[in-house]
Amino acid sequence: MKTLKIVAKFKVTPDTREEVLASILKCAELSRAEEGNIYYDVTANVSNPDIIVILEGWKSQAAIDFHNSTAHFKELVQNVTGKAEIEIDVLSQIN
Amino acid sequence: MKTLKIVAKFKVTPDTREEVLASILKCAELSRAEEGNIYYDVTANVSNPDIIVILEGWKSQAAIDFHNSTAHFKELVQNVTGKAEIEIDVLSQIN
Repeated sequence: MKTLKIVAKFKVTPDTREEVLASILKCAELSRAEEGNIYYDVTANVSNPDIIVILEGWKSQAAIDFHNSTAHFKELVQNVTGKAEIEIDVLSQIN
Repeated sequence: MKTLKIVAKFKVTPDTREEVLASILKCAELSRAEEGNIYYDVTANVSNPDIIVILEGWKSQAAIDFHNSTAHFKELVQNVTGKAEIEIDVLSQIN
């Protein structure tokens, strides 16, 4: 099984930052408890706090599919939609 | 000392992909040998091979400053400039 990484980048505004971050942190805790999760790091750009980036590691595509079906992931999507510009890259390691 | 992560995203074209990737892989090897490096993972978007993402971990801002002063980093910048759309986020962990 091939491990996969995800970079999920959220561009928020000063008005939406707190709410989006709270939703992310709630999802983070539950995501880390998932069997297929390797890591789930919530970070922010050091020079622009309105860029929040989640760095995720997953055991397989099946683990990602399961994660995407969870209530906590669906709740995150619902809570941040319209409050952030979101860019998601699912990545496989080359080197 | 606070560890820092970097996400460096390269949007290439089918024409520039091979050359950019070769430059990145050369820099990767030398970067991993640096004392301040924690990890330097070269990845590609699973659904779009023209998106190459380097996931980096560094022991400190000083380690990043040193890395940015190295010949191999400067060579990478020179080799990829004009051949890729580059987006770099220096990140500190929130959670």
